[in-house]
Amino acid sequence: MSATSFTYVQRNRKMVFGPGVRNTLGAEVSELNAQKVFLIIDGGAIALRKSIEDLVGNKLVSTWTDVKQHVPVELAESARSAVTNSSADLVVCVGGGSSTGLAKAIALSHRIPIIAIPTTYAGSEQTTIYGLTGDRHKQTGSDAIVLPRVSLYDAELTVDLPISVTGASAFNALAHSVESLYATGCNPITTAIALEGIRAINLSLPLVMSSPKNIEARAQLLYGAAMSGISLGDTSAGFHHKICHVLGGAFGLVHADAHSVVLPHAVAFNAPVLPFEMNQLAHALDCRQDDVAGSLWDLAKRSGVPSSLAQLGLHRENLAEVATRAAAEIRTNPRNFDAASIELLLQGAFDGVRPLATN
Amino acid sequence: MSATSFTYVQRNRKMVFGPGVRNTLGAEVSELNAQKVFLIIDGGAIALRKSIEDLVGNKLVSTWTDVKQHVPVELAESARSAVTNSSADLVVCVGGGSSTGLAKAIALSHRIPIIAIPTTYAGSEQTTIYGLTGDRHKQTGSDAIVLPRVSLYDAELTVDLPISVTGASAFNALAHSVESLYATGCNPITTAIALEGIRAINLSLPLVMSSPKNIEARAQLLYGAAMSGISLGDTSAGFHHKICHVLGGAFGLVHADAHSVVLPHAVAFNAPVLPFEMNQLAHALDCRQDDVAGSLWDLAKRSGVPSSLAQLGLHRENLAEVATRAAAEIRTNPRNFDAASIELLLQGAFDGVRPLATN
Repeated sequence: MSATSFTYVQRNRKMVFGPGVRNTLGAEVSELNAQKVFLIIDGGAIALRKSIEDLVGNKLVSTWTDVKQHVPVELAESARSAVTNSSADLVVCVGGGSSTGLAKAIALSHRIPIIAIPTTYAGSEQTTIYGLTGDRHKQTGSDAIVLPRVSLYDAELTVDLPISVTGASAFNALAHSVESLYATGCNPITTAIALEGIRAINLSLPLVMSSPKNIEARAQLLYGAAMSGISLGDTSAGFHHKICHVLGGAFGLVHADAHSVVLPHAVAFNAPVLPFEMNQLAHALDCRQDDVAGSLWDLAKRSGVPSSLAQLGLHRENLAEVATRAAAEIRTNPRNFDAASIELLLQGAFDGVRPLATN
Repeated sequence: MSATSFTYVQRNRKMVFGPGVRNTLGAEVSELNAQKVFLIIDGGAIALRKSIEDLVGNKLVSTWTDVKQHVPVELAESARSAVTNSSADLVVCVGGGSSTGLAKAIALSHRIPIIAIPTTYAGSEQTTIYGLTGDRHKQTGSDAIVLPRVSLYDAELTVDLPISVTGASAFNALAHSVESLYATGCNPITTAIALEGIRAINLSLPLVMSSPKNIEARAQLLYGAAMSGISLGDTSAGFHHKICHVLGGAFGLVHADAHSVVLPHAVAFNAPVLPFEMNQLAHALDCRQDDVAGSLWDLAKRSGVPSSLAQLGLHRENLAEVATRAAAEIRTNPRNFDAASIELLLQGAFDGVRPLATN
């Protein structure tokens, strides 16, 4: 059985969780024997600039604030030049996935370590995956050097994350965890970590959405996102993420907003061929085994995040094209699919109906 | 809350699970760029000598078979001299905890990596902990270099492990996982891994004990032991292990045999102050929350391992002294204790009665 034949690789990394742990940044810089710190802060976290600069202290050689989604190659090259000029030996990145992504581009070229201070739920600080976007294509790869050596998870830095970003980012993380349960590369260890992420997000997200300043709930959500990051890094994104990718790329929807809409329907589609994984999910979500997809839909509703593609501005006549494109992009999935079955799934997502229980 | 304030450190390590994975040994040696392999095989695994030597091939510089429990200092020094003489740049250890322990002593002094091929359920190949025993005292410590870089978990190498060793070794692993749920240093991640170990051992041990050649059950047990090793390495042994240590040290019982006897009673003692952990254990063991200790006792019975101290040859009149010594050794425990309360617990363990449900 596959459950007992697998390879699991762990990489050196330190994760520090707790309100206030940003204050250990100076100590972590010293522990890595770094002398010159290149600081990256994205727009969403720019209010933290002064306080983080103070924490780095006199080892700060440069602060970089020009951060864009998907790490455009030109941007990476500019930042890399600045790093070369500053002789930095460490990158500290503060913010969401775009900030981490730029730090990874630098780590890749300059072979220097990263300390990450995530302020969203992207989770990319827990993966060895990097990506750079050019005019024509996206360069992605995996390299141990881009995995941050230290990640400081300080929920106090997340209380001002807007509700809309919070919900979208958290559902992206949740989707990664859920899909990792049956993705290529999954094994009992990645599954245990993913279920930990799912449990934490399921419990904390509705609390955070109704009380964004609830530090304890924010901390649990951040923890869940970190676990989702690990499980993503060890496996790969699948069916659901490809559909969201098409929705974001070709139809101008904000990629992250689609997650809460599509996930319940993607899970409902695969549920009939995944009884074992649905049992695990039912435990993690504390729901009936035949109602996992419905439970995810309920979570979206309870959290007040989008639950229909119509609501996101898609038009019904586009569903066929989304389905065709997605079907061409998806390489592997537990259940057989074609454009027609994906279109049917998208109908439910478009209307925002609660997925039916499987039987 | 502590559940969201903690530090978790992961170290470079690769775990390969699967029947037959010993055949990747040569490739793993090459991947670590090693040229000269020092091979350690203990008595329990000596039948594998020829086949492992063949797998190492012409990079083998020496095979060491003099292995003793608790790594006596003189033995470590002899082995270290042999390593120096052979100019080895890698240690491969095959066998149980004693073999791994000697490899760690060498890694510590010579700063060379280890590849471990465990054939018992000790789990020490997943920890940075080392120990050396002198005439008067035991030297223990933690060093990243002693954590094997690669561990090959090949259940085919475990089918001939005698039933008595299997049961004792597996219950030792189980006890590590259980105690790690409330040990100093525990956190949600160590707990998730420990629960994974507990689930796997609980499901597989009775199968292995009744059908020792069942490869699938052996593989699951080996996996559970690996998870227990990780959770032990990240936390520390507590109450139960100190009691077993006293039983083994001062009263001549085989240390490992005491685990299956003591664990249910140690858990019963702590259960009233650990409702959250008992709930987690109840899920992992698939039993009622108020009957976790009883469920562990049932597992021992189902597995045919010792369940009373009387059966192990202890005398009732020794219980008071065991209790006094254990009370002096135990540093921290969730529930307050004294010699009298430990003696009461030991009475139950002596008689081998099923622990009562908590309420």
